[in-house]
Amino acid sequence: MSEKSEMRGDRQTWPHYTGLPTFMRCPYSEDYGEADIALVGVPFDGGVTNRPGARHGPREIRNQSSMMRKTDQATGIRPFELCRVRDVGDAWVERPFALAGALDEIAAFFHRVEDAGVVPISAGGDHSVTLPIMRALARERPVGMVHFDAHCDTGDDYLGSKFHHGAPFRRAVEEGFLDPKRTIQIGVRGGLNDPDPWKFSHDSGMRVVCIEELYKIGVDEVIAEARRKAD
Amino acid sequence: MSEKSEMRGDRQTWPHYTGLPTFMRCPYSEDYGEADIALVGVPFDGGVTNRPGARHGPREIRNQSSMMRKTDQATGIRPFELCRVRDVGDAWVERPFALAGALDEIAAFFHRVEDAGVVPISAGGDHSVTLPIMRALARERPVGMVHFDAHCDTGDDYLGSKFHHGAPFRRAVEEGFLDPKRTIQIGVRGGLNDPDPWKFSHDSGMRVVCIEELYKIGVDEVIAEARRKAD
Amino acid sequence: MSEKSEMRGDRQTWPHYTGLPTFMRCPYSEDYGEADIALVGVPFDGGVTNRPGARHGPREIRNQSSMMRKTDQATGIRPFELCRVRDVGDAWVERPFALAGALDEIAAFFHRVEDAGVVPISAGGDHSVTLPIMRALARERPVGMVHFDAHCDTGDDYLGSKFHHGAPFRRAVEEGFLDPKRTIQIGVRGGLNDPDPWKFSHDSGMRVVCIEELYKIGVDEVIAEARRKAD
Amino acid sequence: MSEKSEMRGDRQTWPHYTGLPTFMRCPYSEDYGEADIALVGVPFDGGVTNRPGARHGPREIRNQSSMMRKTDQATGIRPFELCRVRDVGDAWVERPFALAGALDEIAAFFHRVEDAGVVPISAGGDHSVTLPIMRALARERPVGMVHFDAHCDTGDDYLGSKFHHGAPFRRAVEEGFLDPKRTIQIGVRGGLNDPDPWKFSHDSGMRVVCIEELYKIGVDEVIAEARRKAD
Amino acid sequence: MSEKSEMRGDRQTWPHYTGLPTFMRCPYSEDYGEADIALVGVPFDGGVTNRPGARHGPREIRNQSSMMRKTDQATGIRPFELCRVRDVGDAWVERPFALAGALDEIAAFFHRVEDAGVVPISAGGDHSVTLPIMRALARERPVGMVHFDAHCDTGDDYLGSKFHHGAPFRRAVEEGFLDPKRTIQIGVRGGLNDPDPWKFSHDSGMRVVCIEELYKIGVDEVIAEARRKAD
Amino acid sequence: MSEKSEMRGDRQTWPHYTGLPTFMRCPYSEDYGEADIALVGVPFDGGVTNRPGARHGPREIRNQSSMMRKTDQATGIRPFELCRVRDVGDAWVERPFALAGALDEIAAFFHRVEDAGVVPISAGGDHSVTLPIMRALARERPVGMVHFDAHCDTGDDYLGSKFHHGAPFRRAVEEGFLDPKRTIQIGVRGGLNDPDPWKFSHDSGMRVVCIEELYKIGVDEVIAEARRKAD
Repeated sequence: MSEKSEMRGDRQTWPHYTGLPTFMRCPYSEDYGEADIALVGVPFDGGVTNRPGARHGPREIRNQSSMMRKTDQATGIRPFELCRVRDVGDAWVERPFALAGALDEIAAFFHRVEDAGVVPISAGGDHSVTLPIMRALARERPVGMVHFDAHCDTGDDYLGSKFHHGAPFRRAVEEGFLDPKRTIQIGVRGGLNDPDPWKFSHDSGMRVVCIEELYKIGVDEVIAEARRKAD
Repeated sequence: MSEKSEMRGDRQTWPHYTGLPTFMRCPYSEDYGEADIALVGVPFDGGVTNRPGARHGPREIRNQSSMMRKTDQATGIRPFELCRVRDVGDAWVERPFALAGALDEIAAFFHRVEDAGVVPISAGGDHSVTLPIMRALARERPVGMVHFDAHCDTGDDYLGSKFHHGAPFRRAVEEGFLDPKRTIQIGVRGGLNDPDPWKFSHDSGMRVVCIEELYKIGVDEVIAEARRKAD
Repeated sequence: MSEKSEMRGDRQTWPHYTGLPTFMRCPYSEDYGEADIALVGVPFDGGVTNRPGARHGPREIRNQSSMMRKTDQATGIRPFELCRVRDVGDAWVERPFALAGALDEIAAFFHRVEDAGVVPISAGGDHSVTLPIMRALARERPVGMVHFDAHCDTGDDYLGSKFHHGAPFRRAVEEGFLDPKRTIQIGVRGGLNDPDPWKFSHDSGMRVVCIEELYKIGVDEVIAEARRKAD
Repeated sequence: MSEKSEMRGDRQTWPHYTGLPTFMRCPYSEDYGEADIALVGVPFDGGVTNRPGARHGPREIRNQSSMMRKTDQATGIRPFELCRVRDVGDAWVERPFALAGALDEIAAFFHRVEDAGVVPISAGGDHSVTLPIMRALARERPVGMVHFDAHCDTGDDYLGSKFHHGAPFRRAVEEGFLDPKRTIQIGVRGGLNDPDPWKFSHDSGMRVVCIEELYKIGVDEVIAEARRKAD
Repeated sequence: MSEKSEMRGDRQTWPHYTGLPTFMRCPYSEDYGEADIALVGVPFDGGVTNRPGARHGPREIRNQSSMMRKTDQATGIRPFELCRVRDVGDAWVERPFALAGALDEIAAFFHRVEDAGVVPISAGGDHSVTLPIMRALARERPVGMVHFDAHCDTGDDYLGSKFHHGAPFRRAVEEGFLDPKRTIQIGVRGGLNDPDPWKFSHDSGMRVVCIEELYKIGVDEVIAEARRKAD
Repeated sequence: MSEKSEMRGDRQTWPHYTGLPTFMRCPYSEDYGEADIALVGVPFDGGVTNRPGARHGPREIRNQSSMMRKTDQATGIRPFELCRVRDVGDAWVERPFALAGALDEIAAFFHRVEDAGVVPISAGGDHSVTLPIMRALARERPVGMVHFDAHCDTGDDYLGSKFHHGAPFRRAVEEGFLDPKRTIQIGVRGGLNDPDPWKFSHDSGMRVVCIEELYKIGVDEVIAEARRKAD
């Protein structure tokens, strides 16, 4: 077989600017049976309270992810040889104006992925979409979480809604899909309106590592604590 | 009185880059009684079906409108001497995640403006906000409309919702606030999904001037027809 | 069948920001047999003499073309109902550093499209790629051309090369794939280095409508002449 | 009182994109008597020697500062509850083409703020505006200064002028408004034309912490030294 | 001589992205004796009343002008063969903070160009720089002017200054360097603060063709009138 | 001599936005005899496998380098007083479509610089241009190299070519111009397609300091090792 045929055969080595932009240039397939890991876009930003636009996130992340390659240089790991990774398309929402229903639509998509025995990795979208993903992933028992963010996102109702991008993890705990005892939130910082905005995180037993503490105790200690906490 | 004091006294002659950006550098006042014309921002884009962001429109329009001056050179008209024009702030929405309720909130704002006997001029926001504005302005009798747009915006339900940026004028007719016989829509063009998407406009008696016709009959004829139609 | 299923079934009515960006949101298929018309990207800019970057063109055109809809409002024509239109991917080049060979690779791709009896519509890429496309389309007899451009692109060798973005149509005539007697070039304008740069167009019998002439004789006359010339 | 009324009453909790952009969404008031701290814009860049545009700074800083919230998470301090903070508008200049006079106009504005017993916090504008602010703030005795900058800004005449964005602190010392013995300049770095450009800082007794020294001795030591120096 | 040497010899045919960006890729020479026409940059925006930055204009115009070529296609004229055109550098200002003096510096530069018998073509910079250029060009008798602009720029003092970007042609008439009877101003439009802002143009005998009139009488008539007026 | 004349005499103290943008505002001279150090632009990106555009690099680097000044503040060194630094223009390519030949053209330019006994400092351009520069600089004996990059650029043929931006240092070793035993590559990181992409670096005796190791051993140790290695 010619060199040419080989190059045509492996999309991940095509020049970065060619072809349809799938996530990490993985094969596109709506047949979950082909996948061990399903890359899913969630183009929904109806839960955002400020600057919208994350609905365009999946497309642009797909476009930029063409720069990714097959080997992680630091560890030598070649993930695409360890399992079958597929771009399975978008968990897009047919009735986006109804926020609670939109989250249900997203959950339904991830239920189908779960039913197929496939592990999803998602790219949004605003942070409200993590709640319905958890509803699908944690049907049998609550999940733990290692969460990197500037905010705990365990706020309460805001602008008249239980659901928004600042509340998914409070709702997930209340609904029984997230185990706060196995949750660590890393990098929290910034200004806040409430005097104690992340009280729910503290009261429910989550570990909150503010950015000031992270710089003090160091990355290695935080990684070790994350492993113990989310175990 | 010194020249200096005079300049301080008339905000519309301050250098363009100074001061808070109100619409057209008009005085800001939440007391409608001071105004004949109220400039209103409607920072809401919850009815958009594609690219969001128009919620930021009022701020940026205010910022750019500092370039406006006091005399229209072509006609010599000096509008700010003919009536009292005020920036009365934003008809912002407290529960933006509930679309129908959000439109009600906007209507309530414009009802208060109407009750004060003030004429509003609005800057959005996506086109769904025009429906609640009409509800307030047309309480006594349906209004006519001269409408410049690429689309008629007389579509039906979409993405599961009666309300969105492509349907305000159908809803306004159905609710009795817009008189289709006194409505002209100018500049309509572009691609469409339905074979006859603006059927409602035609069936209800609106006059639709597509861009191709406009170029054929000329601007003066369109203006004359608009005057007759909306009279 | 529910409304939901219908929407899922027709990709061209999905919200514009969802799914992989194929050309005009048409189905993606590398099986030419499914298509009457094949939309092809040619991500190659190795023939450009100035600002490069058109290799990224097909991706970005795909992305923006999600805004297209199914009906042309002015004519009522619904092209996607008249024939099967497919995005068949990119005619990308495996050895892009060798310009003449790269053009041969592109020609080979379009030969396969032609062999399948499919009509291609292409998006580049710099203008040098039109030469190999013509080589494939005009195997049996030379084609005519209606060409909209600021330049005639009938220049001679430049920067040491027979092939570049300013010469494809001279080369196409010389190679026997383009019939200059059935060629019209519309909108030509701008500055030039040679005193008579488009001499080849004139000498070979092409009709060149400079922009100044176009404004003088009008669009309808130019369309009529294009029909006569390229017939 | 309804939840709705409460939200309307506190501008700092309005959605970030609503309302006129005042500094940190504080109330706008030209009546200094309402304020303990006055936020002041100084839209003047007539002292810049290179890229202009900072005259637009106050507007854009106001716009972005809508993202600020009421509590500092790291310390729990809620500054807006500790004192009355107001946006008092711009110290704009009526005769900006005359640089020395422009600085006098700015000083006059801050004299009025000082006369009202209000503490100003300013946003410029180029660095030349700090000189007139010091003239107003230091009428009774010279001030100390903790100064974060890449440059000491203690240069001498340049481009024919005593006043420009590289000289305010030399001029402030010479005029008796800045006490160099209580001045520390932190983060100084970059290329320079003079062999010893910040000689005035050293000769007058200022403490200059170049960026290389800062990285060596650490942030805590620099903070401690700043407290001792400016005390 | 090889083809290669020829290309090296004529800078205007070098690839557009190579070499130092002189105006239109003409030879750079500070020796005016080499030139019939001198291309001059005037990097000064100290007379602007709004958005600054035109001081960077000459550099960026030079950069973009590399796209220019040697023949005007519509007329066949090859200007660079008709006379010697040189980029002679910038009329930059050594004391830019003193507006009146800065204009004097610019005049002095153009006096030297005039003394050498060279015709200058200038790129600014804000419109205040045209006054000192006229002072140099019109030493012997007042010039006429064909002026394309949205504004007449015949305003009076503003922001405390006789000199600014809205007044150069009033000042030029008052100083005796511009003959208003041989002046035509084309394309004037836009909003204004004064009720009759361009009264000076009318009173002094300039011909003002507002944009509305231009569209009515047509380009050919305006050209004919400009020829008669400025003759 | 007046202050004015002095400023005119030293281009490096002119205001940053004035004059033609040469590298670091050094005098432009195509006569190498005037220089100890020659600043050279290499506007060529024909060896890039992904995003093109670096052909515009030299112009934009020249433009930005106007911000540079004459003294390095940290060390007090004044390089422009230690030797004569000149901008000698661009090593531009006359036949850019032929990659191997283009590299030969670049080598020929640097041979002329070397023949004149001048030390070149270059700004590209894509990384393929370093190979021909080494060919010129290392005519007598192979050079050592201290290389800061995310990639080792010691790859093998790609996209059908021996020459491209990921292979210059393998080719330089193979051709005998680079001594791998005196080569250190610092900061290497990122994803890769091959399992051991930089095998050539390791096998040939180069020292590769990946970014993870750099953070572990520290900057001072890396500097020391670079001195030992490249000595």
